[in-house]
Amino acid sequence: MNGAQSLIRTLVDAGVDVCFSNPGTSEMHFVAALDSVPEMRGVLALFEGVVTGAADGYARIADKPAATLLHLGPGLGNGLANLHNARRGHVPVVNVIGDHATYHKKYDAPLESDIEAIAGSLNGWVRRSANSADVGADAAFAVAAAQEAPGKVATLILPADVSWGDGGVAVKPVPPRSPQTVAETTVKAVAEVLRTGEPVALLVGGLACREAGLRAVSRIATATGAKPFVETFPARLERGAGLPTIERLAYLAEQVQWQLEGIKHVIVAGTKSPVSFFAYPGKPSDLVPEGAQVHTLAELDQDVVAALEALADEVASDVDPVLQEPARPALPSGPLTVQNWVEVIGALLPEGAIISDEANTSGLLLPGATAGAPRHDVLTLTGGAIGQGLPVAVGAAVAAPDRPVIALQADGSALYTISALWTMARENLNVTTVILNNHAYAILRMELQRVGAEAAGPKAKDLLDLARPDIDFVKIAEGMGVAATRATTAEELADQFRNALAEPGPHLIDAAVPPLL
Amino acid sequence: MNGAQSLIRTLVDAGVDVCFSNPGTSEMHFVAALDSVPEMRGVLALFEGVVTGAADGYARIADKPAATLLHLGPGLGNGLANLHNARRGHVPVVNVIGDHATYHKKYDAPLESDIEAIAGSLNGWVRRSANSADVGADAAFAVAAAQEAPGKVATLILPADVSWGDGGVAVKPVPPRSPQTVAETTVKAVAEVLRTGEPVALLVGGLACREAGLRAVSRIATATGAKPFVETFPARLERGAGLPTIERLAYLAEQVQWQLEGIKHVIVAGTKSPVSFFAYPGKPSDLVPEGAQVHTLAELDQDVVAALEALADEVASDVDPVLQEPARPALPSGPLTVQNWVEVIGALLPEGAIISDEANTSGLLLPGATAGAPRHDVLTLTGGAIGQGLPVAVGAAVAAPDRPVIALQADGSALYTISALWTMARENLNVTTVILNNHAYAILRMELQRVGAEAAGPKAKDLLDLARPDIDFVKIAEGMGVAATRATTAEELADQFRNALAEPGPHLIDAAVPPLL
Repeated sequence: MNGAQSLIRTLVDAGVDVCFSNPGTSEMHFVAALDSVPEMRGVLALFEGVVTGAADGYARIADKPAATLLHLGPGLGNGLANLHNARRGHVPVVNVIGDHATYHKKYDAPLESDIEAIAGSLNGWVRRSANSADVGADAAFAVAAAQEAPGKVATLILPADVSWGDGGVAVKPVPPRSPQTVAETTVKAVAEVLRTGEPVALLVGGLACREAGLRAVSRIATATGAKPFVETFPARLERGAGLPTIERLAYLAEQVQWQLEGIKHVIVAGTKSPVSFFAYPGKPSDLVPEGAQVHTLAELDQDVVAALEALADEVASDVDPVLQEPARPALPSGPLTVQNWVEVIGALLPEGAIISDEANTSGLLLPGATAGAPRHDVLTLTGGAIGQGLPVAVGAAVAAPDRPVIALQADGSALYTISALWTMARENLNVTTVILNNHAYAILRMELQRVGAEAAGPKAKDLLDLARPDIDFVKIAEGMGVAATRATTAEELADQFRNALAEPGPHLIDAAVPPLL
Repeated sequence: MNGAQSLIRTLVDAGVDVCFSNPGTSEMHFVAALDSVPEMRGVLALFEGVVTGAADGYARIADKPAATLLHLGPGLGNGLANLHNARRGHVPVVNVIGDHATYHKKYDAPLESDIEAIAGSLNGWVRRSANSADVGADAAFAVAAAQEAPGKVATLILPADVSWGDGGVAVKPVPPRSPQTVAETTVKAVAEVLRTGEPVALLVGGLACREAGLRAVSRIATATGAKPFVETFPARLERGAGLPTIERLAYLAEQVQWQLEGIKHVIVAGTKSPVSFFAYPGKPSDLVPEGAQVHTLAELDQDVVAALEALADEVASDVDPVLQEPARPALPSGPLTVQNWVEVIGALLPEGAIISDEANTSGLLLPGATAGAPRHDVLTLTGGAIGQGLPVAVGAAVAAPDRPVIALQADGSALYTISALWTMARENLNVTTVILNNHAYAILRMELQRVGAEAAGPKAKDLLDLARPDIDFVKIAEGMGVAATRATTAEELADQFRNALAEPGPHLIDAAVPPLL
């Protein structure tokens, strides 16, 4: 077998059997090799940001990495923003990046660039396969590296001649390193903090945002009075009726200060101590209240769920978690507002839904409206690089074909990776996209005020305005093969949302929700 | 004035008075400062690949750089592919990349990433402004660095507090270093090569692809019998009636071998010795014929036009250039083909047009059909990173509002940066986009055969197919505010092309041109 065939066979044997792809000439032997390994599914995207975001969304739901197939440095560049989000969410991704043949690089052909430098910015694992006989082993290590706790982006650079050369060897999976166990002394020390009676906040992230972790958090909070929070942007948050509802730490620093007011101890587990998303003139970057102490229960690479369960057994051995009762908002009526569109979603959210949430300012009231809906997952914008929502929905739908995927997507952010709609159509994915179309970079209007740049004039405001011309997402979706409708009232949104969920395949609703501000 | 104001004032004083922008929170003070410097025009794009491609296209026509405004590492990542193209075309670009405040970086907030590593991959000039008092000087150096022969990408990283801090100082322009003059001895040595009577090819690039250089090339070729070529992907090629028509070196290595058959000396000026775009099993990367010698008349950073003129005076002192006679194809009829659509363009191309050419396989016959059309510029895909065509058209139209800009755009490549259409609508740019919609990555179908991967099966072929579902560019364009029509015959294309040129503002024609193969 050639290098490409050994690579794909090794990936499949390690459980990596989906490859989101946007290939070029240097990847043609990889593409040709797909037919020799029937278990590998190739999913085409028309832009690399869709490829990488889909790999991210896939892994969040499948709990194992997908592969990407990218074309040299420019392909990696196009995929970099969503790889940044994956990195920040500690989501495993295995990049395969084709490069020029080893002997061709010295000629500095037009597409030559420093792939290692770009991939290196992701602080993950990077390796260049040197010959066809090694590429199988390199792939096995890449999958293990991606899955090493808490999850990272592993990049395998595949020169064209390594791909087409003979002598490839498929290699057995390399077991990823297990997460470290938190020491019992650490658990007991944190338990002592909870027993002081002083005001404590418990902030958890990573895998603690799934059911087992949340149940432990709820038990601890109920028994000790600690204020529990999940991190601001969890990669995957399990929530809904029957699960504990744990508030997310807010995005705005002002709100975090309010959430943590009076706190004397911040216990962190599976995430980092809270910091401001951006700096603002005259405002602190560190959001731990002055004088409060930070205690780490579990580092990012440790087994946070086991640590939380051990802590719960220590301080709440006879306490049950508080579980969310089923509760849905009533279906609202009238013209769409920032308030009522989330009530429509909350009223109609189906059991087992996966929400890809990039609603940004329009989604401020979403958590409250969906807390008591049937159990669902929420995938959030982990790294702050917008243009993630639609690709992540693609990947989630590939990972869970039997679950309804709902992409709640701000208009401005949607345009970065809009061709994700085409992949939804091509793969007939059950994704219902709701575009919150407020014709503005509304979050930047807010940020323009928050950074103290109130004196902004018409030129500045014009750069935050998407209304000249208005963007018609119905036409764009139809142009990419996705059925689409427009909703201007809550009733229309409810009807269209219900219909979209009832029919197989992708749908888009262009919802005229006015800006928050 | 604050840092941002001093930065913008310095840029404007150095002649950089357009800023293609996709800002985020860390750039809000820069955005706010736009109103304090009325000469600076901010042009909003909805994706950073449009921003950077537009800056590239602008500079190719304006012969001076535009600025970009990008949001941290992910924004640079999104813009990287078109910056790669600018780098490869030696086109000056001044990137302004907002970053977290200096004191905020240590908190490793979600959008933190290694901007220097990513920008460093562009082999240009990179500086991080350390404080508000320095940012003016940094900007002046950035503009000079970008313009240093033969042109490069200069990146200025602007921390948010440097932007908002007081004490900014506007700085006078720093003159860019002039290109080096080629030594007379070099000119005379090359003249000797031309006098040997042996078969010579003269390959020129960079500024030699403009009128003065082409006239010198034509004189040399006419007087000596040397075979003249311009580089495969010139940043800007001046051509049409009244100018010398110099053949471009082909994209396919096989064709280059045919073009250079029997050649004993390759003289290069303002470009590099020819190499294959990609490597292919069993085929050479170096396209200089075996046994032929390479002679460099002018390095990339030297004054190539003066060198060619000196060489012409040496070997062709009494010889005039051969100028292209006016000649247009007749208007064709019948269903669109790879042959007849270029005849429509050739028949109707208006005087002074700027063609942004990313037609790829569909455009193979374009040069012949337009050689005798009225004088025009062609902007090509310099670095091979697709998704350049529409953004470059945006930039060219901003640089030359009185000239018709024509984007000839392959369908697959169009999707990478499709929101360029929205910026065309917003700025009411005179861009006529013709989408060559063959529903395939046709070039990859060809490359799949060329790399020797003929055994590819249905999965491989599926990854090169854009017909499931077909993409409707009329709807996509209308969704972004651009008037659009569909042409299936040569007559329809001619009518629609004529109408589009006659009306102000952007238009798109979705042309059903079947694949080359």
